[in-house]
Amino acid sequence: TQQLLSGRAPRLRPFRVTNADRSMKKGIMADTLEDLINKVSDSLSVLCVSALVLDEDGTGVDTEDFFQTLPENAVLMVLEKGQKWTPYTGQYL
Amino acid sequence: TQQLLSGRAPRLRPFRVTNADRSMKKGIMADTLEDLINKVSDSLSVLCVSALVLDEDGTGVDTEDFFQTLPENAVLMVLEKGQKWTPYTGQYL
Repeated sequence: TQQLLSGRAPRLRPFRVTNADRSMKKGIMADTLEDLINKVSDSLSVLCVSALVLDEDGTGVDTEDFFQTLPENAVLMVLEKGQKWTPYTGQYL
Repeated sequence: TQQLLSGRAPRLRPFRVTNADRSMKKGIMADTLEDLINKVSDSLSVLCVSALVLDEDGTGVDTEDFFQTLPENAVLMVLEKGQKWTPYTGQYL
């Protein structure tokens, strides 16, 4: 616990990141929001990440401290400029 | 844990705050109602916060002690002057 709180050692956690049309989803390990954004760019071939939002309700994940409260395997959606989150229509459930 | 319970250190908790037309929602960490209102102004570009209400039923969150009873990741709606809470029509569920 001491090490977790110190923030010194990277603590990689799994996330699942989908693109805006939910045609692709990748499991990605990251320790910080910045780390995840960098890896999302590569993994999902997104040139410029505009936002990361929670897939479940479109909540924008803008800050490191909110990001750190997300559970493992939280599903996020990456948005490029001009893209918007839309709710599940159910065909992927 | 001792520090968290003592109440001396700020105890940041996650909330999700949407604007009045539910076009934007942000994850925001806050320890007090005042703290959340300040951060909402920045994060959602609201010049003057008139009220924070619960998104689920429009309950006004006016007092610090009621705010402290909200669970983590409670969904709140920020209202500017003249704006009113309206119930979900379902398109985001």
